[in-house]
Amino acid sequence: MKEKLTIVKVGGAVVEDELQLSQLLRDFSAIEGRKVLVHGGGRKATKMAERLGIETQMVNGRRITDASMLEVVTMVYGGLVNKSLVARLQANGVNALGLTGADANTILSHKRPVKDGVDYGFVGDVDQVSNTMLSHLIEAGIVPVVAPLTHDGEGHILNTNADTMASETAKALAKDYDVTLIFSFEKKGVLSNPDDDESVIPVITHADFERYKADGTISGGMLPKIENALAAIDAGVSRVIITLATAIDGNAGTVIQ
Amino acid sequence: MKEKLTIVKVGGAVVEDELQLSQLLRDFSAIEGRKVLVHGGGRKATKMAERLGIETQMVNGRRITDASMLEVVTMVYGGLVNKSLVARLQANGVNALGLTGADANTILSHKRPVKDGVDYGFVGDVDQVSNTMLSHLIEAGIVPVVAPLTHDGEGHILNTNADTMASETAKALAKDYDVTLIFSFEKKGVLSNPDDDESVIPVITHADFERYKADGTISGGMLPKIENALAAIDAGVSRVIITLATAIDGNAGTVIQ
Repeated sequence: MKEKLTIVKVGGAVVEDELQLSQLLRDFSAIEGRKVLVHGGGRKATKMAERLGIETQMVNGRRITDASMLEVVTMVYGGLVNKSLVARLQANGVNALGLTGADANTILSHKRPVKDGVDYGFVGDVDQVSNTMLSHLIEAGIVPVVAPLTHDGEGHILNTNADTMASETAKALAKDYDVTLIFSFEKKGVLSNPDDDESVIPVITHADFERYKADGTISGGMLPKIENALAAIDAGVSRVIITLATAIDGNAGTVIQ
Repeated sequence: MKEKLTIVKVGGAVVEDELQLSQLLRDFSAIEGRKVLVHGGGRKATKMAERLGIETQMVNGRRITDASMLEVVTMVYGGLVNKSLVARLQANGVNALGLTGADANTILSHKRPVKDGVDYGFVGDVDQVSNTMLSHLIEAGIVPVVAPLTHDGEGHILNTNADTMASETAKALAKDYDVTLIFSFEKKGVLSNPDDDESVIPVITHADFERYKADGTISGGMLPKIENALAAIDAGVSRVIITLATAIDGNAGTVIQ
């Protein structure tokens, strides 16, 4: 039987809110057994870019990453946010080690090609996650803290979406572990009624999803999120949980399985 | 018999000069066997601070690190410089992994106390280097790339001198390896005549040093450098080499042993 592994993805909004962040770090530290933290940091990057006089441009919710923006995200995600999380987890007794995809060649990507006239710049689409190296580190008692940066194997860092980093890491590690992937979210879970924050759908299977999609219960931006979660399940991840950043103990939120 | 390990320390001036840096990375990649790179980045930090309107203040060649300067060095050393070196080494086939002292709890330090009225701020003096964790990573085929940042175990990153990081890492790893510590330098080595760049002293032992110190051959800023090197030798490091950043193959420069 495979050992359990919990992967928690936390977004930029949580990273920036000291109250939410300190609870997240407490809760993450309390998770027993093997674990991985994947973080964003987009808001901090936008603020730092602004301080440096660099304009932030988003297309379809994704950051256009030219050379100067790449410097900003490399500094902010790989340095400021990652090292602060690592130091704070260490203080909680968690043997955190910060990683980008370049470190130990854990996540290889390629620069996204220009498509429909949109050049995202130095943005990487994931090709390969090295479960071997990550599992080796995890078995050495290390808790990887993964920044949303990858590399192309030719010397370039690339900016990569943190949700994608989390899903791809979960899929790769599903070869070695019984993986629970937890996405922290601004709501308590997937809602059956968007106007009622308590209307959390407890479980969504493939069949449930088709039904909810057909009857309009789930729509809009939630559709790709659930599709990605179901793709992770199809690739061997045991369960995906969508929940509040303050409820990552696996006992709340929507379970997709 | 212990395995050989080469630790190379490269300063901020080399990191910033593309021509020197690419040669350094080629030469470092060509070093056979187990190895570690320790880097600085002070000039880049100073430039970034300037862009952010943060004044750089140095006392005795060391950076005063208040909260805003700590953000800058965490971003620049831990993110920008470290991840760029890691990605470029990966492109050379070196399985680099970037580390600060917080990562995997490799280097613990304490905040330097205020002394003689000088408050260095968030500057860390090294207490302990975990040779166990570093050796474990090295034996897994990883090449640690160490940024000049440590942590206090209480959640804070601290700014630490890169030469000190290199010496302390070398001393700790001397428990497990036959360590050669190479400091890249702006001259070909320790000169017997400061006006003659070719007057490199090939070897300096404790006895030589006492003689050179007494007769004035070695003086000024070179004295603490050699004293630190000899302290590393006393702590078990096999040899310390002071050489040009473009001559780190172990066959040039001044050997202190």
